Amino acid sequence: AKAYDILKNLNIEEGDLIEIKKGDLRIRGILLPSYSKDERIFVIKLDNGYNIGISIDNISEIKLITKNSSKAQESERKEVSRNGAKSEIKIISTGGTIVSKVEYETGAVRPALTTEEIVQFLPEINEIAKVDAEVLFSILSENMKPEYWVKIAESVKKAFDEGNTGVVIAHGTDTMAYTASALAFSLRSLQGPVVLVGSQRSSDRPSSDSAINLLSAVTTAKYAPFGEVVVNMHADSSDTYALVHRGVKVRKMHSSRRDAFQSVNDKPLAKVLWKERKLVMLDKSYMSKKGETTLDAKFDNRAFLLYYYPGLDRDFLEHILTNTKIRGLIIAGTGLGHTSSDYVELFRKATKDGIFIGMTTQCLFGRVNMNVYTTGRQLLDAGVTPLEDMLPEVALVKLMWVLAHEQDLEKIRSLMISNLVGEINPRHTLDLFPR
Amino acid sequence: AKAYDILKNLNIEEGDLIEIKKGDLRIRGILLPSYSKDERIFVIKLDNGYNIGISIDNISEIKLITKNSSKAQESERKEVSRNGAKSEIKIISTGGTIVSKVEYETGAVRPALTTEEIVQFLPEINEIAKVDAEVLFSILSENMKPEYWVKIAESVKKAFDEGNTGVVIAHGTDTMAYTASALAFSLRSLQGPVVLVGSQRSSDRPSSDSAINLLSAVTTAKYAPFGEVVVNMHADSSDTYALVHRGVKVRKMHSSRRDAFQSVNDKPLAKVLWKERKLVMLDKSYMSKKGETTLDAKFDNRAFLLYYYPGLDRDFLEHILTNTKIRGLIIAGTGLGHTSSDYVELFRKATKDGIFIGMTTQCLFGRVNMNVYTTGRQLLDAGVTPLEDMLPEVALVKLMWVLAHEQDLEKIRSLMISNLVGEINPRHTLDLFPR
Ligand SMILES: N[C@@H](CC(=O)O)C(=O)O
Ligand SMILES: N[C@@H](CC(=O)O)C(=O)O
Repeated sequence: AKAYDILKNLNIEEGDLIEIKKGDLRIRGILLPSYSKDERIFVIKLDNGYNIGISIDNISEIKLITKNSSKAQESERKEVSRNGAKSEIKIISTGGTIVSKVEYETGAVRPALTTEEIVQFLPEINEIAKVDAEVLFSILSENMKPEYWVKIAESVKKAFDEGNTGVVIAHGTDTMAYTASALAFSLRSLQGPVVLVGSQRSSDRPSSDSAINLLSAVTTAKYAPFGEVVVNMHADSSDTYALVHRGVKVRKMHSSRRDAFQSVNDKPLAKVLWKERKLVMLDKSYMSKKGETTLDAKFDNRAFLLYYYPGLDRDFLEHILTNTKIRGLIIAGTGLGHTSSDYVELFRKATKDGIFIGMTTQCLFGRVNMNVYTTGRQLLDAGVTPLEDMLPEVALVKLMWVLAHEQDLEKIRSLMISNLVGEINPRHTLDLFPR
Repeated sequence: AKAYDILKNLNIEEGDLIEIKKGDLRIRGILLPSYSKDERIFVIKLDNGYNIGISIDNISEIKLITKNSSKAQESERKEVSRNGAKSEIKIISTGGTIVSKVEYETGAVRPALTTEEIVQFLPEINEIAKVDAEVLFSILSENMKPEYWVKIAESVKKAFDEGNTGVVIAHGTDTMAYTASALAFSLRSLQGPVVLVGSQRSSDRPSSDSAINLLSAVTTAKYAPFGEVVVNMHADSSDTYALVHRGVKVRKMHSSRRDAFQSVNDKPLAKVLWKERKLVMLDKSYMSKKGETTLDAKFDNRAFLLYYYPGLDRDFLEHILTNTKIRGLIIAGTGLGHTSSDYVELFRKATKDGIFIGMTTQCLFGRVNMNVYTTGRQLLDAGVTPLEDMLPEVALVKLMWVLAHEQDLEKIRSLMISNLVGEINPRHTLDLFPR
């Protein structure tokens, strides 16, 4: 029979505190509803706030400890959040797996849980800080767009204005790094940390990182000494800590692993020992908190990101560059920042027409240097701007922001090569390249 | 004064075997011409074939051991290569830093040395195998294009037909992985290893990896048990070994480091202890050598590689998809293989019109899985083909090859999802993700 039917026969229901014996293991936790497609799995919430899925097979003992334990907890929690005190940390939910459940019908993951439901799952959050939650969107982050970046930036500004000292943004992992960059360019002189957090496995799955990531993010928002936009994600496979990455220096480097996020061309800013609720700074060169957060969120998406490859058809490139809309191009070039010399004259014409063309590297790690090879020099001469060690995605988001603020090509260039919020790291140490 | 002037005063010229004392170090080697921009540097070739640059400052002793030692070696070498025996290993030179020198006038690096000049620098190569060299191109690899891939493939076929048992291709690092893929799809049932090799620092620079890489590549070509196209590059910063990567599973991951190449979603095939001239296999699941190499090198470049990002303007995408030329699109999507749902109908229309659309992930590491999220399911329904764990670049080169062989969309699809030469790795182990 199915797991939940077996439990029902034992008079155990969702919300009950139970104890299971399985092999040498004795596990105690509150039974949660399962969204798993595997009917032999049930989900319990452990003491530490972590949800795990357990197969009904080979269980030697199931004991009911307390009936309806979660409801009791919940009313306690409600009391906490109703005590009238103002919140310290605002949680803004935009969607993504971290606030998702698996649809019964299709088995697909949909962003559906509200942040409050998440907090219900994780009452420990209220022990770290007084939190207040807002559901801004319920979208998968692949559907994110510049208009939404603006709304998120406005919500963050509002949260600080209302007296919060830190902000947590629940967000899908797919485009989290793009949003982090967008916020970093839009929100300056931050009063406190803006912490994006997501999860690679939805909270009903045995190996979900939702709880750990959210606990870490709230810890970061509460204790961080910096006023920066950061990404807070699970970092190791043994679940001991999370890493805090600078929002303009991070990338999702794996499609499915929980430790998918990596700082690229920069060290992580901090480490979160989530069990101890402790934040350990790893990099001392952060931007400190400022008096009042300024908001300047405008984006012009008439920019294109071109991933260069051998055999790129001249027609395709001409089509893009002569599109009446285009105002800027970011090239993810090869190596130190190259394309074939065949395109140099096209680029020269485009920059003469006022189109900004910036060069990054598709290697992702390392810096462009267009003075080494003849091809690089030709591209420089044609007006292509080298963008140091900026990631292609970050350069693109920055360009969208810059285009919304400047018309003149020289001013656009000068902003693009200025280090506005740490998107350029002037000095790389040897340990920055993971092997 | 300048380094070479000082040496001249001591009656030491290029080609002389000298011994230097510097601090605790005693270094012996043959003086080479220097192309360094730093005039206080001179270059000597060590016994092990490795060239190093030495600053003239703080040298306590310089001793002349043998006059004109390299010329003597050279004539010996010529004798070896003139002994009439057929070569075992063919070195095909296409250009790149590995066969480059720095231009005196501009300081820029130009691919100029011939392979024979390289072999002159490295007589040890002849101790490993009887080599024969051919200069096919002298280009920087950012200028590589499908027509050239065809020429290289033809040269490789010819080299095997002439009785060589292995082929080494000197190539720029920028697009080496693209060429490796192109050769892997074009040359099947290989009689022996096809080893691409490059270098990140030109051979006249103190930290050049040219010698090590070339020695390793010849070692691989001579001893490898496989018939595969591979990339052989320097792997660690302490210069002890090189790694051999499967050509369809490798990527240049750093713009300047000598250990820039990494296998992605696959283990390296082998390790080369270049000093010991030993090849150690790391992966036993390779394609073994076959009786006769088949050549089928055709590419159709009416394919575009789209790097998806939030805010991608609909017009840009429509422009690309309605370009009269286009026959295929590879998307480097987010996460498990997504774009915004906004584009689903555009993709549906395109696939209906017979355009192939394949999905890879911009995370690079990991596999696409379009069944998890609603967005993925919508894209599948619109006819987008998930391409497993193929790298975006590899999928693109494969598509160019497939388009040149098939007209029918269903046949194109079926080839794209077939694992032709190891470009799909069905099983990932945990250690595949560098941290
Ligand atoms: N596709 C999801 C994945 C996640 O939430 O992690 C999203 O980005 O929204
Ligand atoms: N830009 C050069 C770099 C190198 O040779 O490594 C090329 O790819 O040809």
